[in-house]
Amino acid sequence: MSEESNAKSMSIIVTKGSLDWAYPPFILGTTAAAMGLEVSMFFTFYGLALLKKDLKLQMTPLGNAAMEMPMMGGHMVMPNAMAMLPGVDAAATVMMKNLIKKKGVASIEELREAAVESEIRMVACQMTLDLFEYKREDLIEGHELGGAATYIDIATKSDINLFI
Amino acid sequence: MSEESNAKSMSIIVTKGSLDWAYPPFILGTTAAAMGLEVSMFFTFYGLALLKKDLKLQMTPLGNAAMEMPMMGGHMVMPNAMAMLPGVDAAATVMMKNLIKKKGVASIEELREAAVESEIRMVACQMTLDLFEYKREDLIEGHELGGAATYIDIATKSDINLFI
Amino acid sequence: MSEESNAKSMSIIVTKGSLDWAYPPFILGTTAAAMGLEVSMFFTFYGLALLKKDLKLQMTPLGNAAMEMPMMGGHMVMPNAMAMLPGVDAAATVMMKNLIKKKGVASIEELREAAVESEIRMVACQMTLDLFEYKREDLIEGHELGGAATYIDIATKSDINLFI
Repeated sequence: MSEESNAKSMSIIVTKGSLDWAYPPFILGTTAAAMGLEVSMFFTFYGLALLKKDLKLQMTPLGNAAMEMPMMGGHMVMPNAMAMLPGVDAAATVMMKNLIKKKGVASIEELREAAVESEIRMVACQMTLDLFEYKREDLIEGHELGGAATYIDIATKSDINLFI
Repeated sequence: MSEESNAKSMSIIVTKGSLDWAYPPFILGTTAAAMGLEVSMFFTFYGLALLKKDLKLQMTPLGNAAMEMPMMGGHMVMPNAMAMLPGVDAAATVMMKNLIKKKGVASIEELREAAVESEIRMVACQMTLDLFEYKREDLIEGHELGGAATYIDIATKSDINLFI
Repeated sequence: MSEESNAKSMSIIVTKGSLDWAYPPFILGTTAAAMGLEVSMFFTFYGLALLKKDLKLQMTPLGNAAMEMPMMGGHMVMPNAMAMLPGVDAAATVMMKNLIKKKGVASIEELREAAVESEIRMVACQMTLDLFEYKREDLIEGHELGGAATYIDIATKSDINLFI
């Protein structure tokens, strides 16, 4: 942490677990690590799902009035009445995954592996683990367990603190 | 604030008012206060509802592609087509409340009381109050009124600033 | 930035693009600039839409269990089953715009113009631009392009960093 070295440091508290919102913490975390910052990520709430070995990330256009997808040369915003039809979430998930692949953006699995290799400190929230009855063996290797106090302690020592 | 004492300080701007998203600010705020930090919470936008005396917090699985509930030994993610049925929000709210109780997690009412007792500074956003036509007497005792400038002033003096 | 002057500085990473969530970054950014802070805004993800010349911001009550609208002397929270009906998003958008106007709150267009006039540094995320196939000429004058590294560089030099 910043008290022990001259490197800047960043903490990210990761609270969302959908396919789209999984990107910001991993992109920012790995970029910061590549720039020499000491990075800690605290996975809690719906975000704890991002530490699962077996990622089954989904997304939904529902309730997101700003999700535009490039389609057939234009942009589409899906009306909610259409978005709630069975199968539309799966379609949106596939569409986003295809778009990401086509554009050469890394997958969440790849970004997470980069995060581990960059020695980003990955903390899983104990309370969330208990609340949602996840098993520790379902989470990837290399994580540690911690609570809100662990996070606050990290944040007091970090130069940048983001709640995502 | 940090200029007047050696204690670290934290500000949280609280913008969401659903049952699930009410937890992160109150858990982080009360934990930080218990660790000796000076904490300020600025309630604005949908988050202002968390200062109401009479909390009627609800939540919805709709539009949350990552909400997993432990159920009958496994985990359930509710499809949106099912989630929009009448009564499902009420059911999800009850299910979450039961889960929280069963796991021994404090209620929002209890956490909020702890926040007041910890002398966390609670600021209600004047503009939101006017916009949504809340009455000041509907809010709990011990809050003060402020605007965006109040928040910026607090944030410039805080070591940790979170937007939740 | 903070290394070059005595002014405090703030960075905001803007990730949401709906009518309601467009307010917090622009209100906080312009307020901070008016108070003498050096402000940078990094528009990425769904938030990049807020830099479009032609703003078509919408909002939805869907999936927001805490959206209360003052109506006929009371408050209304719309059930999701009703909120998914065709036309309800448009109605909610109009209702919010009317409410904002009636209460004398500035429009997003006005706040954005104030942001540009306050010399807030406006950075558009290159990766999002490519991913969603936006054209640079669709964005307002005065923005610059940048990536995650640009953001991290700004954040390490800022006193306040918010992820919205």
